[in-house]
Amino acid sequence: MTDFTITFQPDNISIKVEEGTLIAKAAQDAGVFINNLCGGEGVCGQCRVQITGGKIDRDDQSRAFFSEEELAKGYTLACQTKVHDDLDVLIPPESRIEGAQIMTGESDRSSATGAAASEEQPSGPLVRKVYVELPEPTLEDNMADVERLFRGIRKILGWHQYEITLPCLRKLSEKLRQNDWKVTVSLAREIERYRIIDIEHGDTSMEPCYGLAVDVGTTTVVAQLLDLGKQQVLDVDGTHNMQASYGEDVISRMIFACGKGGLDPLHAAVIRNINQLIRNLTSRNGIAPEAIRAIVAAGNTTMSHFLLGLSPCSIRLEPYVPTAYIYPQISAREVGLNTHENAILETIPSVASYVGGDIVAGVLASGIAESEAVRGLIDIGTNGEIAIGNKDWLVCCSASAGPAFEGGGTRCGMRATKGAIEKVQILNGAVQYQTIGNFAPRGICGSGLIDIIYELVKNRIITPDGKFHRKLSDPRLTFVDDIPQYTIAERDETETGDILVITESDIDNLMKSKGAVFAAIKALMDYIGMPFDQLESLYVAGGFGSFLNIPKAVAIGLLPDIDREKIQFIGNSSLTGARMCLLSEAAMEKSMTISRSMTNIELSNYQPFMDEYIASLFLPHTDRRLFPSVDY
Amino acid sequence: MTDFTITFQPDNISIKVEEGTLIAKAAQDAGVFINNLCGGEGVCGQCRVQITGGKIDRDDQSRAFFSEEELAKGYTLACQTKVHDDLDVLIPPESRIEGAQIMTGESDRSSATGAAASEEQPSGPLVRKVYVELPEPTLEDNMADVERLFRGIRKILGWHQYEITLPCLRKLSEKLRQNDWKVTVSLAREIERYRIIDIEHGDTSMEPCYGLAVDVGTTTVVAQLLDLGKQQVLDVDGTHNMQASYGEDVISRMIFACGKGGLDPLHAAVIRNINQLIRNLTSRNGIAPEAIRAIVAAGNTTMSHFLLGLSPCSIRLEPYVPTAYIYPQISAREVGLNTHENAILETIPSVASYVGGDIVAGVLASGIAESEAVRGLIDIGTNGEIAIGNKDWLVCCSASAGPAFEGGGTRCGMRATKGAIEKVQILNGAVQYQTIGNFAPRGICGSGLIDIIYELVKNRIITPDGKFHRKLSDPRLTFVDDIPQYTIAERDETETGDILVITESDIDNLMKSKGAVFAAIKALMDYIGMPFDQLESLYVAGGFGSFLNIPKAVAIGLLPDIDREKIQFIGNSSLTGARMCLLSEAAMEKSMTISRSMTNIELSNYQPFMDEYIASLFLPHTDRRLFPSVDY
Repeated sequence: MTDFTITFQPDNISIKVEEGTLIAKAAQDAGVFINNLCGGEGVCGQCRVQITGGKIDRDDQSRAFFSEEELAKGYTLACQTKVHDDLDVLIPPESRIEGAQIMTGESDRSSATGAAASEEQPSGPLVRKVYVELPEPTLEDNMADVERLFRGIRKILGWHQYEITLPCLRKLSEKLRQNDWKVTVSLAREIERYRIIDIEHGDTSMEPCYGLAVDVGTTTVVAQLLDLGKQQVLDVDGTHNMQASYGEDVISRMIFACGKGGLDPLHAAVIRNINQLIRNLTSRNGIAPEAIRAIVAAGNTTMSHFLLGLSPCSIRLEPYVPTAYIYPQISAREVGLNTHENAILETIPSVASYVGGDIVAGVLASGIAESEAVRGLIDIGTNGEIAIGNKDWLVCCSASAGPAFEGGGTRCGMRATKGAIEKVQILNGAVQYQTIGNFAPRGICGSGLIDIIYELVKNRIITPDGKFHRKLSDPRLTFVDDIPQYTIAERDETETGDILVITESDIDNLMKSKGAVFAAIKALMDYIGMPFDQLESLYVAGGFGSFLNIPKAVAIGLLPDIDREKIQFIGNSSLTGARMCLLSEAAMEKSMTISRSMTNIELSNYQPFMDEYIASLFLPHTDRRLFPSVDY
Repeated sequence: MTDFTITFQPDNISIKVEEGTLIAKAAQDAGVFINNLCGGEGVCGQCRVQITGGKIDRDDQSRAFFSEEELAKGYTLACQTKVHDDLDVLIPPESRIEGAQIMTGESDRSSATGAAASEEQPSGPLVRKVYVELPEPTLEDNMADVERLFRGIRKILGWHQYEITLPCLRKLSEKLRQNDWKVTVSLAREIERYRIIDIEHGDTSMEPCYGLAVDVGTTTVVAQLLDLGKQQVLDVDGTHNMQASYGEDVISRMIFACGKGGLDPLHAAVIRNINQLIRNLTSRNGIAPEAIRAIVAAGNTTMSHFLLGLSPCSIRLEPYVPTAYIYPQISAREVGLNTHENAILETIPSVASYVGGDIVAGVLASGIAESEAVRGLIDIGTNGEIAIGNKDWLVCCSASAGPAFEGGGTRCGMRATKGAIEKVQILNGAVQYQTIGNFAPRGICGSGLIDIIYELVKNRIITPDGKFHRKLSDPRLTFVDDIPQYTIAERDETETGDILVITESDIDNLMKSKGAVFAAIKALMDYIGMPFDQLESLYVAGGFGSFLNIPKAVAIGLLPDIDREKIQFIGNSSLTGARMCLLSEAAMEKSMTISRSMTNIELSNYQPFMDEYIASLFLPHTDRRLFPSVDY
């Protein structure tokens, strides 16, 4: 077969591929990120690229997304176009997934271990170093080396069951005798036992023992590097989930994994992600990847399955049963992570197919499970997950909210990365907006969309059922093929040179999303027979970046109308919970308890949810009594 | 480098080796066994070979062992002679280690699980198959696959902690769904938990689940193939321990391993041994090696260290501390055994550096630890190990007996293999003997030597202090360099064409060996303050083959003079104990209890033992009151 060279711009990255390779595949292999909402099915049109050199053949599916002008300029779909020539491929701004500006939730290094609501004192990290000085054996005290070592550790840590890996046992004799019976052991805790995973000469217990807390999100993967001994966050980094090449949301990726694509590429992608974060974090902190001795990962149930290489195929089919909710503690090397040879990987347990370890971590981080009063957590992403409870009981549910709040499903939506419009105000027909990083706008992220909906209804540009006032005279309101749209940013303001708009169909999607989230909260509160105002706190987590306008989110009916002081945006609570489990045995045990004790209400079959959902498709709601404070 | 071809006779096995390779190394690589007592130091003269084709250079060390006549015939030491030519090497009978006639202890296939003294009803084998039919998940019963599987197993096996290996978890979803939720799992038991190590479609619980019990002896490695479900011994096979190339006894091998040779070759040798036994046993029973799911091994402390690849170097130095007495349960593949990918290897725990898992297995097999009355076990090999006790207490000790009873350290000694003289009677100056397999005699094994000593003293050919009556007129008594020797087999009777004799120095060695064993028993009985006649039973184990003349062993002062009915030869009790642990959880737990509760008396520093040893260097003993029944 002939090989062709594909060069991607603006990054000027080249790769040689075989004839017939899809451009999207070539980009993926080259490490170039291209938007891809539908998983390569050619139906979302997000992977548009411009061929600026070389010849291509386009089929009808590829042509359907473009105007004649665009086709003349060389636009095509990367996921549908095969390579038959050397190509120069320009990835336009709207198709790019940028590596920068990933919201790490707790990107301030000084935030250290300070958690959202209540992070309890750690009772011992997942891996700890213990320095032991052993008495030299004599004829009277002649127990074997390993029993002598266990005895020495017991004097320090108390009575537990101890184990040792075969590689450590093999070097034990020499390690003890070459260093005058003084060694430092690294101990990993398991259920009801500790395992020795490393032995070092002398006292290295004051040298850092490194661990990694990882939030394996559908969109982004974020990791914190920690000094486990000092209980200190050293650094944080995030990257786009490379699985995006196989589909934007978990459902597309499951379809890919359970179809001809197979599980391996998705498993490999998330491992590559974490290894990249390990590389970044260790190199800029001057340590070796082999110094990392423990990893705790939190992710939704599907992401956790991809991480461990477990089949997720049964998750998306009724009755929505995954392979596991509680995952075995394994060797990090067993899944290909580049760490210490005996490092362990612990994955926070899930509750249900659509209520994962990220929510368990969030409940842990927000302190709901220790609270006397009833508190709630809402994690808004492609799925909206809700957990409510206190120290005695916990209920949860998940509703498919659609990708609207994460930048999908709307004409100009994008994720909360640089150039995204995150705040919007409309005053006397003038639109004021603010973008992430103050760059020229490239699209609108979730928090911007919430603001827009609020402003449109507040300014009576749309009606409470989400339709534009057709007779309104406003130069920003235009019609394309009879569908009304409202201009947020003009052509000359944007990076792409295209206008940024919100269409009636976008508003419809956003109302469905906010309706699903609210209906889920309402159904869950009704299930437990409790009015909203009895919630002492409501924590909101999700991929909104660093900003979410709570009053506007209430006013559009996304969040319940309770005292604004009670609602708190806590950012990446999944990462916080993962870090807590890395640092504290009690937190890890608590996460097990949370996962076991939380009652999941399966909404897909729950009639009250369906009723609430229909009632929620209004701004703020068909039942205004639920939103007494809303002033429009 | 030039390669030369070495052909070993009588087996006609050829191998190509580099110039300068030692003949002993070439033999080892070719899989040809040559005697080697000193571990290749050129000091024992046991590896004598005859070069019948090709040229060699001999150094003085090699020449010193041979007469001019022998040198002319091409005799040399295999461990000292390097290859500089194509060679034909004849291994004479006295230097051969034959593969046949390994004493497997329980070679009768019909013996099944019938053990020596008391083998309790198994409470569950190390690995068992369980067939489970799971209810298909519904929206109401929607636990994850693995929790559903655990629930199904708990219904059958009761409440335990269950775990699963990552490879099994990865295929679980597909295994359950492709087979209508009916699967057979293989469960390995660990301390307080069970681990799923295999999942098969449908009901295969009636198909055998295979296990291997292995006695890793210093001289021979013996393995039994078992059907764990039916608790049935299917076959047995034995092979010489290939470590013999690195030294005949454990001390030589430790010196090799802890010197320039390193641990790896010794570890690899015993793994090759077991893999060879697995190959033999599985191929002749028509099963795949991958069908073996569990192995239990018993060996002395040094052998157990070699098996697991642990450093034994501290064992032979005061205070005689090994790396471990209790060994971790590991994956059999982790040490290179050719089994099922998740098969487990359990090694029976040791008590002390010179009281190993073989003795723990022997105590288990002989039922001493469950007995109301006090019983004893003597395992006679290069070390004599003694354990005494009952259900409430156990003491043990080990004495270096020397290799005399295993065929080393005497002029014509050999191991209990074919052609060995195993029974001897002297009547009116005529010697009658019987050889193993009724072959022409090649040497004298331990039981034959015991008989000879008895017959010599009984017939007043030697005095009770082991010296020949110098003035005796007996044609069998001759003098070589003034050292008296007694002819057991004449030149025309033997396979080698050399006479088989016993020399005064042989008798001296044997008296030291029997003295050490008896002194150890006596010192141990005195330690617990109990006369011999209060022993209800005394079990004798060891490499004597199938035969040991108990009355003669008592009469020379090797065994104590108690009621002959109380003394029972039980053969390979190490193998029996290993099998019991493979078949029964209770037995494995018992072996842990035995290893933890047995008190080891370190004789090397114990004055009463030294006194007893000096007093025992007489036939039967300096204190005749200890042997009232002895009639000479």
